[in-house]
Amino acid sequence: MSNSNLHRLGGSTVIFPHRPGIAASAAVVGPKEGKGPLGTMFDLVVADPMYGQTSYEEAEHAIFREACRRCCQKAGIALDGVQMLLGGDLLNQIMAASLAARELAVPFLGLYGACSTMAESLILGAILADGGYASPVLCAAGSHFCTAERQYRFPLEYGGQRSMAAQWTVTGTGACLIKSDGAAMAHIGCATIGRVVDMGVSDASNMGAAMAPAACDTLLRHFADTGTRPEDYDAIVTGDLGRVGSDLLTELLKENGVTLTKEKHIDCGLEIFNPADDVHAGGSGCGCSASVLAARLLPRVHQGEWKKFLFMATGALISPTINQQGETIPGIAHAVVIEGGK
Amino acid sequence: MSNSNLHRLGGSTVIFPHRPGIAASAAVVGPKEGKGPLGTMFDLVVADPMYGQTSYEEAEHAIFREACRRCCQKAGIALDGVQMLLGGDLLNQIMAASLAARELAVPFLGLYGACSTMAESLILGAILADGGYASPVLCAAGSHFCTAERQYRFPLEYGGQRSMAAQWTVTGTGACLIKSDGAAMAHIGCATIGRVVDMGVSDASNMGAAMAPAACDTLLRHFADTGTRPEDYDAIVTGDLGRVGSDLLTELLKENGVTLTKEKHIDCGLEIFNPADDVHAGGSGCGCSASVLAARLLPRVHQGEWKKFLFMATGALISPTINQQGETIPGIAHAVVIEGGK
Repeated sequence: MSNSNLHRLGGSTVIFPHRPGIAASAAVVGPKEGKGPLGTMFDLVVADPMYGQTSYEEAEHAIFREACRRCCQKAGIALDGVQMLLGGDLLNQIMAASLAARELAVPFLGLYGACSTMAESLILGAILADGGYASPVLCAAGSHFCTAERQYRFPLEYGGQRSMAAQWTVTGTGACLIKSDGAAMAHIGCATIGRVVDMGVSDASNMGAAMAPAACDTLLRHFADTGTRPEDYDAIVTGDLGRVGSDLLTELLKENGVTLTKEKHIDCGLEIFNPADDVHAGGSGCGCSASVLAARLLPRVHQGEWKKFLFMATGALISPTINQQGETIPGIAHAVVIEGGK
Repeated sequence: MSNSNLHRLGGSTVIFPHRPGIAASAAVVGPKEGKGPLGTMFDLVVADPMYGQTSYEEAEHAIFREACRRCCQKAGIALDGVQMLLGGDLLNQIMAASLAARELAVPFLGLYGACSTMAESLILGAILADGGYASPVLCAAGSHFCTAERQYRFPLEYGGQRSMAAQWTVTGTGACLIKSDGAAMAHIGCATIGRVVDMGVSDASNMGAAMAPAACDTLLRHFADTGTRPEDYDAIVTGDLGRVGSDLLTELLKENGVTLTKEKHIDCGLEIFNPADDVHAGGSGCGCSASVLAARLLPRVHQGEWKKFLFMATGALISPTINQQGETIPGIAHAVVIEGGK
């Protein structure tokens, strides 16, 4: 009865022989994100970061829930037809996802991968659908600037000056509905699971530097496992390395003999805001790569502009408690191959 | 290419046709747990809750890592042969698991399900192995009394009086190695994924009451999906409902026409400590059900004492931030059927 037919390309890349499809995607974001270059592409731009709730945390969960609802609506699937919700956020105890799951009332598996959560969610969702364990599966990740600042750094009221390496946590949630069959915007071909990599960065205002080594590690392993190179993809998309982390990644890859050109590389953290928006090194947060994926990247495959891209969300596993005890900030990155056709 | 052969019994129960095996399990616990009734069964009882580290958080991560190492050792698998680590803990940003993953250097998917994490980890591990996506997979969950108290309730130095409904967070980690083939202590047959259920409990010192409704919901759906009853199992094992939660679960089940006798029901929270140990309503924490599973439950199947049991870890998704804002405490429970033979 054993299953010796391993769907693995060696190393830590898993392949999905049935190429599960992303039937629909949706993104709900805050007002600042709505004023950015992708503003018109989001499904809903909320007018107020409080979104009619009594706290920023409640707003974060309401935005998470709304993105999930709209994603199902776009796929033409009733909520009670969803087999599972896989997701997470940056709040302690991933409360935005948990409270959203309470109201959506679907079976829920909570994930935490910091800003890599959307990729982690897609990978597990693809495995569930590809292996025939659940379909459709809702995958989502979200964040909120106001809750993240007070949890990870300083309360907004403190009005502290932000370092130029700091990034601006995106207020927003991106959701994708994965199905084992039927029409799809795009398909998931394979994925490389990340390892936790820590090069000793301890500055809580420089997440890009903490994540770049993990991004490099996953990318090199992905290329080795799959026998591909950057040229084989229409784009190599990183989550939220921002300006500092993107430059570091390019440099680290170069040291390892891989050239990632500016034309081939897209960082969601550099896509979502205007450079003049006072976001310093760019956007960040689970919701950054998740909402850019849902609103900007998947439609490019759906509309035939791209054939195949690598979506690699990156996470800085920062913990204020451990960080204050002198620990450095470990990073992680998971990469997912997303492609058109069937 | 679509996969229409869904391994699902209806509802939210997934079946594993290849019945992946648990090749080995290990538990590393603190001194108080070592003095409990299961003391001699754990692989390692550390003499000091600091475990030679500089903080309780660092101790928690070192215990997590040690349980993972010992589990691999017992299975005769080198760490670099492990395809994936799936796990989590109660620390914000699941830092114990993340830091352990950094040192173990294996591909890592971080999970958060509060005290239900061990079941969540087993379910995803079983899916990965059963579907041929990864094998062997290391599944682990841990907690630490001293870090949990200061994060969720009060710093230990405060010396606050504990309510009689309060539970004592277990210091310890349990780990299981799941394999798609080869010799195994026990096998995983199917699993029911939990929904987030919230009946309005807001007392952070009464986790049992917050979790019991979720346990009831999952159990009823499990029985309905699989057509089984409590009599079909050697034991129905709950994670850490404790005295208060166990009584509530029995009552809630009774209201729904299901009789769960005291002979059939085992709660890990009531197994791990002596009633005279001043732990009030019993043990709790991710590490409670994980270490009892590894040290006490799986050996009962391995030694032929039990044929089949239901392992249902329960989690109270409490967030101090949201709780202080007036939110109630949602609960979740995932159930896994663990059986002998092949």
